[in-house]
Amino acid sequence: MSTVALRPDAESDPRVNAVFDDIRATRKSDFINNFWLYLAFDPALLEETWYGVKKVMAEPSALDPLTKELIYIAVSITNSCSYCVHSHTAAARAKGMTDAMHADLLRVVATAGRTNQLLNGLQVPVDPVFNLG
Amino acid sequence: MSTVALRPDAESDPRVNAVFDDIRATRKSDFINNFWLYLAFDPALLEETWYGVKKVMAEPSALDPLTKELIYIAVSITNSCSYCVHSHTAAARAKGMTDAMHADLLRVVATAGRTNQLLNGLQVPVDPVFNLG
Amino acid sequence: MSTVALRPDAESDPRVNAVFDDIRATRKSDFINNFWLYLAFDPALLEETWYGVKKVMAEPSALDPLTKELIYIAVSITNSCSYCVHSHTAAARAKGMTDAMHADLLRVVATAGRTNQLLNGLQVPVDPVFNLG
Amino acid sequence: MSTVALRPDAESDPRVNAVFDDIRATRKSDFINNFWLYLAFDPALLEETWYGVKKVMAEPSALDPLTKELIYIAVSITNSCSYCVHSHTAAARAKGMTDAMHADLLRVVATAGRTNQLLNGLQVPVDPVFNLG
Amino acid sequence: MSTVALRPDAESDPRVNAVFDDIRATRKSDFINNFWLYLAFDPALLEETWYGVKKVMAEPSALDPLTKELIYIAVSITNSCSYCVHSHTAAARAKGMTDAMHADLLRVVATAGRTNQLLNGLQVPVDPVFNLG
Amino acid sequence: MSTVALRPDAESDPRVNAVFDDIRATRKSDFINNFWLYLAFDPALLEETWYGVKKVMAEPSALDPLTKELIYIAVSITNSCSYCVHSHTAAARAKGMTDAMHADLLRVVATAGRTNQLLNGLQVPVDPVFNLG
Repeated sequence: MSTVALRPDAESDPRVNAVFDDIRATRKSDFINNFWLYLAFDPALLEETWYGVKKVMAEPSALDPLTKELIYIAVSITNSCSYCVHSHTAAARAKGMTDAMHADLLRVVATAGRTNQLLNGLQVPVDPVFNLG
Repeated sequence: MSTVALRPDAESDPRVNAVFDDIRATRKSDFINNFWLYLAFDPALLEETWYGVKKVMAEPSALDPLTKELIYIAVSITNSCSYCVHSHTAAARAKGMTDAMHADLLRVVATAGRTNQLLNGLQVPVDPVFNLG
Repeated sequence: MSTVALRPDAESDPRVNAVFDDIRATRKSDFINNFWLYLAFDPALLEETWYGVKKVMAEPSALDPLTKELIYIAVSITNSCSYCVHSHTAAARAKGMTDAMHADLLRVVATAGRTNQLLNGLQVPVDPVFNLG
Repeated sequence: MSTVALRPDAESDPRVNAVFDDIRATRKSDFINNFWLYLAFDPALLEETWYGVKKVMAEPSALDPLTKELIYIAVSITNSCSYCVHSHTAAARAKGMTDAMHADLLRVVATAGRTNQLLNGLQVPVDPVFNLG
Repeated sequence: MSTVALRPDAESDPRVNAVFDDIRATRKSDFINNFWLYLAFDPALLEETWYGVKKVMAEPSALDPLTKELIYIAVSITNSCSYCVHSHTAAARAKGMTDAMHADLLRVVATAGRTNQLLNGLQVPVDPVFNLG
Repeated sequence: MSTVALRPDAESDPRVNAVFDDIRATRKSDFINNFWLYLAFDPALLEETWYGVKKVMAEPSALDPLTKELIYIAVSITNSCSYCVHSHTAAARAKGMTDAMHADLLRVVATAGRTNQLLNGLQVPVDPVFNLG
């Protein structure tokens, strides 16, 4: 089920083909997951999403690739994005996440979910010492 | 502003005092931030929250302390918990988060927020390959 | 799967029947989607929901019907309401949403999701010039 | 700070005046809180909101008035609606919520927040026995 | 579909077996639902989650067991946790929730969802009278 | 209060200066709001955010500029992003949003918030007719 139609011939569009080629080259795999297949309904949206995500997640930056996946999963869980949780948990495993790290990620995410509720319920004033701006 | 009253004499309660002493000892600091000061309105809730958070965040586990703070911030941002974002950003800095790491955290959190919206809008079926269960 | 039982004979209840008749008349179609079929487990809740939604979405107002559907979808995506995204995307198409408009809607929704995360992470003070109250 | 202007003379509008009179009569108090004062920028929106909320919260129904307030607070905490948490916590106190009940409410809300994160992270299939529909 | 593997022999682990025994004893039933079956991938996370939830939901406290289930459902709906909504709606029924109470719960949850959006849109200042802290 | 420090001399950095110049030129105004001033703590994040938002919101596309602002506000309200609601409500007014349109936007956003809660509570199966994929 999706809100857009899947186009079996999407790659006959050169813009879609170029993105799919880059996905395959970046991941060193022929597999293209459903997100990109469905997003191909609009080549411009496909391009800006893929290159945007690739720049953030695949290029070297201050945080290492696995840490970035863990953060991505944490946001996706909190936003209740089922597809995102599945795909980025798989990505994190591919980058070395062990069962113990997965359990620890869930433990921290659950602890934050718990105290976020407490603080949003208590409406406690922010301590001035936390202010940087 | 808060939904509970701050008790200036909270520490005269031995249960509150024991928790506050443990907070000071754990952090090697006399400073106790507003979350715990206000939570002292119910000593049992204070106890289970502090010891629960301490166990997850301060005890050695599969993920290192700074990574756990980054995950905590990611959840807190997504839940729009202002106090939590402030206090855990301060905690992350105290554990070594640089400006570059902070910017990278925000970049990943924002990218996940962006694609979470796309996927929740597209309602794409989860690829069977992502299934572990 | 649902948390309430579907009642095949729901329309034998005159209150349910009246609402279903109004749905059919308003939409000029015999099709009644699952939301209303399941909501019929409580005729009063069915009535107040249908007439409330109809008043807002079907009566002439300051915004045109398609714009209202786009706003509805934007909220439903952000709340991760799968059914709502599906049903209101279909409604928007029926009111003239093209593929290009759908892609643009998703682009704006994703951009807002991205900057919402940045701002909730930065906790920037609101500029006084934005204050109207 | 607000996104709409407060109208000091709002009650000179007879529709606003009628709603404000009903608020005062329903609550047996002259105090009108900011939500209604600001919402008066659009008399129709003020009317449908006040009468809608009053019908659900003030009329006898299957759940008692205090239980309804606790549910209202739980949703408001989860949606991070600061004003709503403040106003409905005050309403719950006025209807008999003690400090111990407040702490218990927060404890349940925090526990749900914690397990919601775990389940959204695990993506566990729903047991068929839970299905009613 | 799940992000963790289901272990058919999980109960051969004595820590898992002890938790499952306690679940069966607490509920006076042999049925163990998927949440606990899948969570057994990490015995420590299983233990802290089960004993944490049991303490809050099954031990006598200021709120009665059914009210606590209604609050749990309210949070789970707002967080869009499908599994949690299903399992806690079933739990609430087992504790006496009637169809009329279910409808009233949904009515209050929906009303809060509506006004939360209005207040988050209006950004109304909190009335000083609501401040307790 | 912010989680990053405001740099009064940010524009001495040529990358920051180039973005600020583009903001001023695009808006035909000397005013730069706090989001961009604080985001300047990381010039790369400032660049990708500003040019990303400008491309989506300021370039001609399938939806008109005001409709895009209304969608942006709808997402920001649902994510409880206070700054975003303030700044994009101001932007929508600048693009022609009247009080009546503002009220209608809030009415639709609130109606969606209400039915999102109902559907997430009912967990109704999606009608096959809504499936496009």
